[in-house]
Amino acid sequence: MMQKSSVLCSLLGIQFPVIQAGMAGGPAGSELAAAVSKAGGLGTLGAAYMSGEAIREAVKLIREKTDRPFAVNLFTADMKDDFSRIHEVKEVLAPIAESIGAEAGFEGLKTKDMFLEQFQAVMEENVPIISTAFGLLPEEHMAEAKNQNRKIIAMATTVEEAISAERSGADAVVAQGSDAGGHRGTFDMNKHPQGANIGTFSLVPQMADALAIPVIAAGGVMDGRGLAASLMLGASGVQLGTRFLACAESGAHPAYQEMLTQSNEASTVLTSAFSGRPARGISNQFISSFELSGVPPLPFPSQNTATGKIRKAAAEQNNPAFMSLWAGQGLRMMKYGETAEDILLKVMKEAEDSLASF
Amino acid sequence: MMQKSSVLCSLLGIQFPVIQAGMAGGPAGSELAAAVSKAGGLGTLGAAYMSGEAIREAVKLIREKTDRPFAVNLFTADMKDDFSRIHEVKEVLAPIAESIGAEAGFEGLKTKDMFLEQFQAVMEENVPIISTAFGLLPEEHMAEAKNQNRKIIAMATTVEEAISAERSGADAVVAQGSDAGGHRGTFDMNKHPQGANIGTFSLVPQMADALAIPVIAAGGVMDGRGLAASLMLGASGVQLGTRFLACAESGAHPAYQEMLTQSNEASTVLTSAFSGRPARGISNQFISSFELSGVPPLPFPSQNTATGKIRKAAAEQNNPAFMSLWAGQGLRMMKYGETAEDILLKVMKEAEDSLASF
Repeated sequence: MMQKSSVLCSLLGIQFPVIQAGMAGGPAGSELAAAVSKAGGLGTLGAAYMSGEAIREAVKLIREKTDRPFAVNLFTADMKDDFSRIHEVKEVLAPIAESIGAEAGFEGLKTKDMFLEQFQAVMEENVPIISTAFGLLPEEHMAEAKNQNRKIIAMATTVEEAISAERSGADAVVAQGSDAGGHRGTFDMNKHPQGANIGTFSLVPQMADALAIPVIAAGGVMDGRGLAASLMLGASGVQLGTRFLACAESGAHPAYQEMLTQSNEASTVLTSAFSGRPARGISNQFISSFELSGVPPLPFPSQNTATGKIRKAAAEQNNPAFMSLWAGQGLRMMKYGETAEDILLKVMKEAEDSLASF
Repeated sequence: MMQKSSVLCSLLGIQFPVIQAGMAGGPAGSELAAAVSKAGGLGTLGAAYMSGEAIREAVKLIREKTDRPFAVNLFTADMKDDFSRIHEVKEVLAPIAESIGAEAGFEGLKTKDMFLEQFQAVMEENVPIISTAFGLLPEEHMAEAKNQNRKIIAMATTVEEAISAERSGADAVVAQGSDAGGHRGTFDMNKHPQGANIGTFSLVPQMADALAIPVIAAGGVMDGRGLAASLMLGASGVQLGTRFLACAESGAHPAYQEMLTQSNEASTVLTSAFSGRPARGISNQFISSFELSGVPPLPFPSQNTATGKIRKAAAEQNNPAFMSLWAGQGLRMMKYGETAEDILLKVMKEAEDSLASF
């Protein structure tokens, strides 16, 4: 399609410059990652909340389905807990838990930092591509991965972050625009307490101007028009998350998928209520209740741990009002009844058509 | 360049599908509007804060420089004042005013609603294109304008707003993404208290899918890559504001222009502190001071009126710390030392080059 996207495809060993986002917590499991890679894109296992053992099992499942390259996505955030304000937050969460009959359990909360076992699993399983969110791989891990010729994709939300990713040794950078669903990947939450929220349209060309390595556009890319536009803005490829949420191989909860069908471009908000870090999702009762309280969430990852049982109970009850419904701002462009392969082929066809029309 | 952009150009009687945003309060005066129209784009007089008489004079100046079509931009917001919380807001504004030696004068504040005299001037002066922000032309004014074959461009921030604009009789809609500088054009502030902030990349294709009339992409469009990308996303043209702020014909204050050179994609914030409506501008001391107070601004336009003397004094003192420095999220793409014509010719050349490279 173009020199830049060819470079990205060669770098990653893929056919199409389309990456499936590593949506953590269920949507991007082994089935979705395998289907995307098998169809010629880059599938990604959303492994941020998985144990090392779970990653090993998922990687085996992916390899049973395809021998093409795939990525595993990890969080590199500081996982130190701070529950010093739990009593204040508990005042808000306890009535919410009670309202859905959930056992919230605010005693002895602790977040398990699984990064080291995750990284070890990824290295030992010879995962070819490692993608990261919330920061960069620690220097020694980056060196180890690069020594073994793994490719590293870092997600960034500002040009400054992208430059630091390139300097750290990353092979490509995902430009995560504010249109994107899910957690803002902003590195330094002290510097950008609400996340750095620069629109995809603005972020991509500014990153492309600043970097020598390929830039992958993310946030609001839903179809081939988005791929064509991203290439025009200087990107080498695109990353899609939301579009894959409703496909046959998606691991997203059915109640979450159902909410997508009822939502549009104005349905999402940025909120820290679920995890302590800003993330874009469909507005629901949990977000409204927490934010109306005026109590600030705990910092990440402690808020995430504190809300875990409520989210789990809501999922078991098929109750989307209290689940995190991460989604981007392109929801009117959602399609249903597709496989991952359908999505890839349509996106490529539409992009070719868009480009050919000029 | 393409059928869709040709339709827009024919509709407006322009050569290039590039519109200069109607930046109110100085930047988009008669000199800029005339230069843009003369060079083949659509120049726009930012007339929202101008009297009918001032509009008449500016229109004459434009016509002395070019016989090509141009637009006059008006606000259609409800201009009813609400100063019921002025005592609370005064507690925040008075020390700020004092700190720069400004006479703030909080007694007898009143916003003059100039819409009727503005509209009358625009009609009587035979202004060919009327563009609006914050809502739609009232029904009787829309009918009068359409009867006289004026073209109407409405700015919208959601698909729902865009559909209502099309139904009202608008000839084209500006899709104002959240990347854009200046006021969010959101129609109903009760429905979207922070403004509807959908990224340009996401908003444009969803509006294009929903409308039969042309969509003009706005927000983060800074160069020809942006024009090419907008066309890929389904737009018929683009609107640029920020890029024109530093050109030779810009009416932007020199201290404001200087601040642009020191800013980047992460320098802007959305704030209601200046006017009572959310707007994107470069973060400065006024915004920080007002927001740190925790006092909510008055509603628009009363907050704008209440901060007027501070902004005026700051401008007279060349002090950008207390001026509104509206700007979009593409600031690393700013160029300096250009004329408006340079910008238009470069944007068109770059867009052709981008499209030709595929």
